[in-house]
Amino acid sequence: MRKLRAGIVGGGQGAFIGAVHRIAAELDNEARVVAGAMSSDPEKAKASAAAWHLERSYDCYETMAAEEAAIEGGIDYVIIATPNNLHLPVARAFLEAGIHVVCDKPLASTLDDARELGKIVASSGKLFALTHTYSGYPMVREARDFVASGRLGDLRKVQVEYNQDWLMEPLEREGNKQAEWRTDPARSGVSCCVGDIGTHAKHLVEFVTGRKVQSVCAELTSFVEGRRLDDDASMLLRLEGGARGTLVCSQIACGEENALNIRLYGTKAGLEWRQMKPNTLKVKPAGKSWERFRSGGGYLGEAAARATRTPAGHPEGYLEAFANIYRDFMADVRRAAAGEPALCNYPGIEDGIRGMRFVEAAVASSGNGTIWVEV
Amino acid sequence: MRKLRAGIVGGGQGAFIGAVHRIAAELDNEARVVAGAMSSDPEKAKASAAAWHLERSYDCYETMAAEEAAIEGGIDYVIIATPNNLHLPVARAFLEAGIHVVCDKPLASTLDDARELGKIVASSGKLFALTHTYSGYPMVREARDFVASGRLGDLRKVQVEYNQDWLMEPLEREGNKQAEWRTDPARSGVSCCVGDIGTHAKHLVEFVTGRKVQSVCAELTSFVEGRRLDDDASMLLRLEGGARGTLVCSQIACGEENALNIRLYGTKAGLEWRQMKPNTLKVKPAGKSWERFRSGGGYLGEAAARATRTPAGHPEGYLEAFANIYRDFMADVRRAAAGEPALCNYPGIEDGIRGMRFVEAAVASSGNGTIWVEV
Amino acid sequence: MRKLRAGIVGGGQGAFIGAVHRIAAELDNEARVVAGAMSSDPEKAKASAAAWHLERSYDCYETMAAEEAAIEGGIDYVIIATPNNLHLPVARAFLEAGIHVVCDKPLASTLDDARELGKIVASSGKLFALTHTYSGYPMVREARDFVASGRLGDLRKVQVEYNQDWLMEPLEREGNKQAEWRTDPARSGVSCCVGDIGTHAKHLVEFVTGRKVQSVCAELTSFVEGRRLDDDASMLLRLEGGARGTLVCSQIACGEENALNIRLYGTKAGLEWRQMKPNTLKVKPAGKSWERFRSGGGYLGEAAARATRTPAGHPEGYLEAFANIYRDFMADVRRAAAGEPALCNYPGIEDGIRGMRFVEAAVASSGNGTIWVEV
Amino acid sequence: MRKLRAGIVGGGQGAFIGAVHRIAAELDNEARVVAGAMSSDPEKAKASAAAWHLERSYDCYETMAAEEAAIEGGIDYVIIATPNNLHLPVARAFLEAGIHVVCDKPLASTLDDARELGKIVASSGKLFALTHTYSGYPMVREARDFVASGRLGDLRKVQVEYNQDWLMEPLEREGNKQAEWRTDPARSGVSCCVGDIGTHAKHLVEFVTGRKVQSVCAELTSFVEGRRLDDDASMLLRLEGGARGTLVCSQIACGEENALNIRLYGTKAGLEWRQMKPNTLKVKPAGKSWERFRSGGGYLGEAAARATRTPAGHPEGYLEAFANIYRDFMADVRRAAAGEPALCNYPGIEDGIRGMRFVEAAVASSGNGTIWVEV
Repeated sequence: MRKLRAGIVGGGQGAFIGAVHRIAAELDNEARVVAGAMSSDPEKAKASAAAWHLERSYDCYETMAAEEAAIEGGIDYVIIATPNNLHLPVARAFLEAGIHVVCDKPLASTLDDARELGKIVASSGKLFALTHTYSGYPMVREARDFVASGRLGDLRKVQVEYNQDWLMEPLEREGNKQAEWRTDPARSGVSCCVGDIGTHAKHLVEFVTGRKVQSVCAELTSFVEGRRLDDDASMLLRLEGGARGTLVCSQIACGEENALNIRLYGTKAGLEWRQMKPNTLKVKPAGKSWERFRSGGGYLGEAAARATRTPAGHPEGYLEAFANIYRDFMADVRRAAAGEPALCNYPGIEDGIRGMRFVEAAVASSGNGTIWVEV
Repeated sequence: MRKLRAGIVGGGQGAFIGAVHRIAAELDNEARVVAGAMSSDPEKAKASAAAWHLERSYDCYETMAAEEAAIEGGIDYVIIATPNNLHLPVARAFLEAGIHVVCDKPLASTLDDARELGKIVASSGKLFALTHTYSGYPMVREARDFVASGRLGDLRKVQVEYNQDWLMEPLEREGNKQAEWRTDPARSGVSCCVGDIGTHAKHLVEFVTGRKVQSVCAELTSFVEGRRLDDDASMLLRLEGGARGTLVCSQIACGEENALNIRLYGTKAGLEWRQMKPNTLKVKPAGKSWERFRSGGGYLGEAAARATRTPAGHPEGYLEAFANIYRDFMADVRRAAAGEPALCNYPGIEDGIRGMRFVEAAVASSGNGTIWVEV
Repeated sequence: MRKLRAGIVGGGQGAFIGAVHRIAAELDNEARVVAGAMSSDPEKAKASAAAWHLERSYDCYETMAAEEAAIEGGIDYVIIATPNNLHLPVARAFLEAGIHVVCDKPLASTLDDARELGKIVASSGKLFALTHTYSGYPMVREARDFVASGRLGDLRKVQVEYNQDWLMEPLEREGNKQAEWRTDPARSGVSCCVGDIGTHAKHLVEFVTGRKVQSVCAELTSFVEGRRLDDDASMLLRLEGGARGTLVCSQIACGEENALNIRLYGTKAGLEWRQMKPNTLKVKPAGKSWERFRSGGGYLGEAAARATRTPAGHPEGYLEAFANIYRDFMADVRRAAAGEPALCNYPGIEDGIRGMRFVEAAVASSGNGTIWVEV
Repeated sequence: MRKLRAGIVGGGQGAFIGAVHRIAAELDNEARVVAGAMSSDPEKAKASAAAWHLERSYDCYETMAAEEAAIEGGIDYVIIATPNNLHLPVARAFLEAGIHVVCDKPLASTLDDARELGKIVASSGKLFALTHTYSGYPMVREARDFVASGRLGDLRKVQVEYNQDWLMEPLEREGNKQAEWRTDPARSGVSCCVGDIGTHAKHLVEFVTGRKVQSVCAELTSFVEGRRLDDDASMLLRLEGGARGTLVCSQIACGEENALNIRLYGTKAGLEWRQMKPNTLKVKPAGKSWERFRSGGGYLGEAAARATRTPAGHPEGYLEAFANIYRDFMADVRRAAAGEPALCNYPGIEDGIRGMRFVEAAVASSGNGTIWVEV
């Protein structure tokens, strides 16, 4: 049982998400990141690789894909941490070279690209994980089990929201690279806010409820003057099975950090989870006292238990949630190597394509006067 | 400076709101409730009046209005705590008899009635208060001051929600009087949930922001089978000045008690208040540490300070907020008696009419496929 | 069933506790405050009585006791809201005149006075209530039921604390009347902080657990220079039945408002209640999810249910808790009038005497090098 | 700048703390754990090392120390994760072999051992870190800066508590290895609870306030029948400079997970931090609104900023705090290699010796009737 070898494209110095991927991939001692094409700027690529003690650094991802596929001890999988528009070409290069892929969300900058990537994944036979991190939290997995077990009853209402404020000023005109590409249609796609964080919120709803979002009625707004894409959205949701809901996402919600929150209301119980207090799941059964399920609690289901490393009361957070996505993905990498079928306990290509359909539906709804649009 | 004399119509045994009005009216030693027509059932009216030690009990409100206006020591104002459809006739009787009115919300069961009542109030020259209780909380008043002083900056986004679960089962078919009339179009009007609690949420938005809700895009739902009116609604909002928002109200949100919450996001700060933790106002200034303004704090503005009876840390709640509405109304009653102009530091007839326009707009939006409708 | 008539001694303008007593006594429509000797300063007494619309105002409490006992329609009970050293003489005057008494805590300024008052109460045959307000909260009563029902198991550990900061500066030298008498040994007794708030904390422990505090090991401190009495104390506790604990009280805990908190740990569950979030009782059963019992919840016991006026989610607070003490006291006043035995569902003379023994034990412990002293 | 090489003694399968050390040491890509003597049971040692992909596994720590010192590419430092009584011999072996040490707390099982170890560290000239993890949290470091900068004013009062419930049943008689050695005087020392977690609480007080605990007045209890050491303690504290306080620690506090909380009260502000909500620091300035400093906030000091890996709102927790201790220790390892003086930004041998003096003082106080004992 050797450690797996991972490579990374993007994520060079200045992008916090690079280190997040590395930590998440290595946290459980199952893999080492050994190779990378960490920047399109060769100097920066080299410096980033050196800072990470990588064994092999590349100037371009095509070369990396080719060489890693060719050498003995090449990488088992690649991590894609680039702007959205590069997800397709980079993923294509590695998948076609026979290398599994972990990809940042959203899946692509356009729905067409997303569908194209779907075909490539299918024809490659390789594994594909999409880092909807928040589904890695133990208490989110417990929430899914709670709903699936029937303890919520029939789902009636959903409230999901994802509020941040980091784009409340025009950072894209002040040299912030992260803001630049996210507000640039060429690199980001048709949406900034809905694509970047709205897709997380929507994925969380579907992950926890087991119900698809069927249609949306949305208003997207660009509050910061001169911004080319939305930085805020509010929408009504209709879900499979008759449930209704709202999804709010904002990057101009002054004072909010990373406030992804979800509430579900069924015929038997209500449920609430907040990303910034991730180790608690609030349960509100009809006519009874409120309950607080706690990460590490002996009464939790197996999915939550497996996703926890420390005893109750030793807070785990974002990095550990991210690592849970990797842990499940890498279990499949090992299964694939052993010729076993994948378990797919992590977001994948289908989630990514649905996410892009959701983005395009929201944009279409808003652009047509806030009408219902099917996802 | 004698104590004022109040009367009440409705609010008899079984309706918790009756006692709430009495406590609120009397809390600050400014008034006594001395007369009432507390039920349309004469026996119940009599028993209710006796339980309250009323000096005069009536079988019908018309008689009460006439007699109280005629006798020496008659009531200074009447409290209307009846189903919505009676607000107009009862208010008319007292206003035309020259008696000031405090009325439960929503203002009426139809917009036509509301407008009619507006005319009567205007022509009567009498005072009219509408019990949007939540604007009585000290920290709600502080929030309004905060916005008005410019500390929030330009308002961009609003999230308001009012979740309850008391109608999650078909109580109206199980003998619950409160549920019966609220879900009965003849007594309640075109909406149950939006009328009963959505109007509170909408009033709160306008009260705190000083901006009117201009248009809504709404979906109303009846989740409980056989129910004749909505028990849940979600809507998008557009406010004067370009702010956007969402308003969610529900009476089937399993596990929620009386969860009226509001969040505002401006260009300088965010603001959050929760009715169930009413003595705290969360302030989130851009780029700074979060703040928690606390009821009773020496740093609060005058409006909040005047609305508090106890030192910081001695929780005040719903009854005290209700009493603050009465306190301001009764100050106007005394001013009117002295020939001074009213200050109107409480919700009034205009708020009531706007509330009914909001209800009708929401119903129209939802009935026409969730389109934008002006309020 | 006429309304009861109450009188008050002390509580004149400037003392917030006066209005608290009035509101609490009148909240449930069971009584009116009709007479008072509200200040030792005749002018202030007169003005205070006028502001309250009292029917009869007195210059001195002796006259008031005599006259109220003599006239038809005299008061049923008197409220004592004076500095500690006056509790004994005032109570004596009214009890000997045959009038029931509600008295502020602590019971007296000395243990000798307290014992003397105990004898007077006993010989008078009149009712005596001590306003340990916090035992009036619904969730405190639920906590007591929880322990009494065995759901906590055997009590092992108690943590109680009562932190304020209002005396963190030398207010007694800046004209603050409340600070003046509380830090004056002649009026306050041998302790300021332990007497004023430590007794509340200690009463709460005994009320909820049903166990007496047997001995204390205490350190009292005067942090503010020149102050004549303690403004802070920390102590270890031993309770009947082997439980251990800590009691912390402070009036110099910068930033704290009125933070009375209690935690209990038994062999089956833990329990936590916080006065500033009074409508929630946290329950932590061994090996299970945490629970939050909520005021107004249908699953609560009868004691909590009876102490609530509004549906769940409509916050009740300090005034309502105070009113619950009055409600139970006045039920006994009516029973006494009907010749029925008292139920005594409120703190009484014995609690007061024990409270004074606790104060003297804490002072003795601290003065003798922090040794164990029996209460 | 090569990665450092670490070894570990103890921490084999079944001990959660082993993986915690590995993750913390490797999290920032600064080191790899390459060698270990992970158990005194050779089979378990081998299996544990294989599971971790270690390059070198040893049966005994003496051999490991000798060989690692001898080979090229031997470890730079060793991690000691054994029961307390082994800290001295294991540390001695590695220090005398010229290898730096990271050691679990408390420092030893006796004060004599601790002092002996102090001499060895001094004579070896090697680095020594003690894993008082909680001082690694960003907001704890911010708290220290807050106090040091004078914003708290003069410290008056401290309340620290560390409540758990994992020993509320006699696990040591049910095969739980962790419970066995911690309640065994031969391996644990004179105290279980005070040694295991009380030392953390005491260290936290001294770390944040910059003041030493001068004397304690303690009561230690064994609530679980037959237990040979304390599972609960309450104590009064006197600190340098006149501050007073309480320290409560318990392993039988039913329902508590890992509730380490500290509150400080100064003449200018109050401060509160809770380990289970580690990313918030509550600040309560005199006469102003409460503040909440948040991990990742741009307004924080340099110490907090350096200890954070993700943007605000992406929760970091226990593992990341642990990694911060390692990060600072490894910076010194690199400085030592470069001949530079150590910065010692982590708990060290002096903290460990003081911790053992505190344990012995608490035991002595309790054993002598709860008297004041100097630390």
